[in-house]
Amino acid sequence: MSDRGPALTCKVDLRVRYSETDQMGTFYNSRALEWFEVGRTELLRLVSVPGNEASGYAGIEAQGIMLPLVVAHVDYLGRAKYDDVLEMTVQAHMPGKARVRFDVRIVHADQNHAPVAGGYTVHAVTGSSGKPIRPPSWFVKAFTRTDQ
Amino acid sequence: MSDRGPALTCKVDLRVRYSETDQMGTFYNSRALEWFEVGRTELLRLVSVPGNEASGYAGIEAQGIMLPLVVAHVDYLGRAKYDDVLEMTVQAHMPGKARVRFDVRIVHADQNHAPVAGGYTVHAVTGSSGKPIRPPSWFVKAFTRTDQ
Amino acid sequence: MSDRGPALTCKVDLRVRYSETDQMGTFYNSRALEWFEVGRTELLRLVSVPGNEASGYAGIEAQGIMLPLVVAHVDYLGRAKYDDVLEMTVQAHMPGKARVRFDVRIVHADQNHAPVAGGYTVHAVTGSSGKPIRPPSWFVKAFTRTDQ
Amino acid sequence: MSDRGPALTCKVDLRVRYSETDQMGTFYNSRALEWFEVGRTELLRLVSVPGNEASGYAGIEAQGIMLPLVVAHVDYLGRAKYDDVLEMTVQAHMPGKARVRFDVRIVHADQNHAPVAGGYTVHAVTGSSGKPIRPPSWFVKAFTRTDQ
Repeated sequence: MSDRGPALTCKVDLRVRYSETDQMGTFYNSRALEWFEVGRTELLRLVSVPGNEASGYAGIEAQGIMLPLVVAHVDYLGRAKYDDVLEMTVQAHMPGKARVRFDVRIVHADQNHAPVAGGYTVHAVTGSSGKPIRPPSWFVKAFTRTDQ
Repeated sequence: MSDRGPALTCKVDLRVRYSETDQMGTFYNSRALEWFEVGRTELLRLVSVPGNEASGYAGIEAQGIMLPLVVAHVDYLGRAKYDDVLEMTVQAHMPGKARVRFDVRIVHADQNHAPVAGGYTVHAVTGSSGKPIRPPSWFVKAFTRTDQ
Repeated sequence: MSDRGPALTCKVDLRVRYSETDQMGTFYNSRALEWFEVGRTELLRLVSVPGNEASGYAGIEAQGIMLPLVVAHVDYLGRAKYDDVLEMTVQAHMPGKARVRFDVRIVHADQNHAPVAGGYTVHAVTGSSGKPIRPPSWFVKAFTRTDQ
Repeated sequence: MSDRGPALTCKVDLRVRYSETDQMGTFYNSRALEWFEVGRTELLRLVSVPGNEASGYAGIEAQGIMLPLVVAHVDYLGRAKYDDVLEMTVQAHMPGKARVRFDVRIVHADQNHAPVAGGYTVHAVTGSSGKPIRPPSWFVKAFTRTDQ
């Protein structure tokens, strides 16, 4: 990330579900990617989609723009048990003309904010057929800092 | 089920994945419904779809016929741990003109075939828009015993 | 349910996650059971566990009491898409001396509260070894109406 | 990986389950990590655990050795639809004294072996309390090539 920081950032709280634990007693590893997606959803809600009823990613998809994953990376930093409350911070920017990257950090809401997981996902920007597209200007603007 | 028995039946083996366990050390309850679906997939592979490349449920969906769930019922009969091998028996019949029912029983492959779960799912027959349809005759025939 | 109604009831809101959709565009069927569990978690938070730091089900488990599923039943009543907000109502009572039953109903928060799913789960009351136990009086009391 | 190659390698076939699809019509991204785990399970079955009835990872866990994830990385390389058959190749080695790394590549069994996903997971070696341990020699030997 540049020292200007990303244009978009948000915080999301979530609780570890029983279904998300495994026999080690902590969350099962793939669940981190589902939480990352919950974070992206909330962050994309900040993107206003012109001329569309649906907001956020549902609205973006309704415009025929998909954001399929290209890369996912997770660093597992600590345990989280059933019903623990977690705080997730998500930041987004465009590292290329048809790429969006989300950086995520998850810590405990209690327990001195002990870290749980960090990582990122990189997404292509495609049409509904799956072909890469140049995103429209309202999309690009949403991911670019304008306060300079 | 009538005393003639259902037209279609099959057996499927599967292993409990680590991701399917929870902190109680057995499989998480919702996983039974995912296993039921694996069983339906194998059973529907026995249905030959006329004039279609794809076989089974993928071929049925390609013909514009969907089988959304209406009811799911699971009786949990025993524990199953990570990497246990399970044997699933699936039977299907049509209890109504636009309904398909799958009866499922899951036991341990070892451990004297100790029972793990039983239950059933009932499905509507709809077009791709979700509206109920009368299934074509090749579909009905597949679910009806002909050896009488 | 008796006409006295159950002792415990609560409401929970949740959003459909992208990971919970399937290629039919609605939530995948097994997800309903994960939502039921989110509802049970919130309802069990109303149960105060004597002499224990952890509240709710985590506190109950810390006391060596487990509530493994015996039966799960889901009626699928309508579709729910990614990011839809759902309202879940959960009620609990004890239909037997070592049984707890949770009745669940899920409707859309918007869309005129169109129904999404209903059903119930029945749970045994066991010790941490999995053997059935008679639950302690504080447990029974929590599930019994006292305003008569 | 060194040019000697890893000590352990295996191939696993799997089918995309309906529950693993999402509304984009391909597998949901977190499922790749569940498949990686299925691959690890099969590869670890090649590790003979001395003096233990259970084989593979279940046997390793029964010896009090856990392999919690430290890092997971996935490159998404192509789509895979419901019921597609996938071929997964897994290789393992120890990049450090208390670290195991699994490299995974998933391609279509048909469709000219078009790539689906690649990546790796890095695991700590810990006791059942979660504390890092030096693995016993039978463990280290299993991950080291001996044909030199």
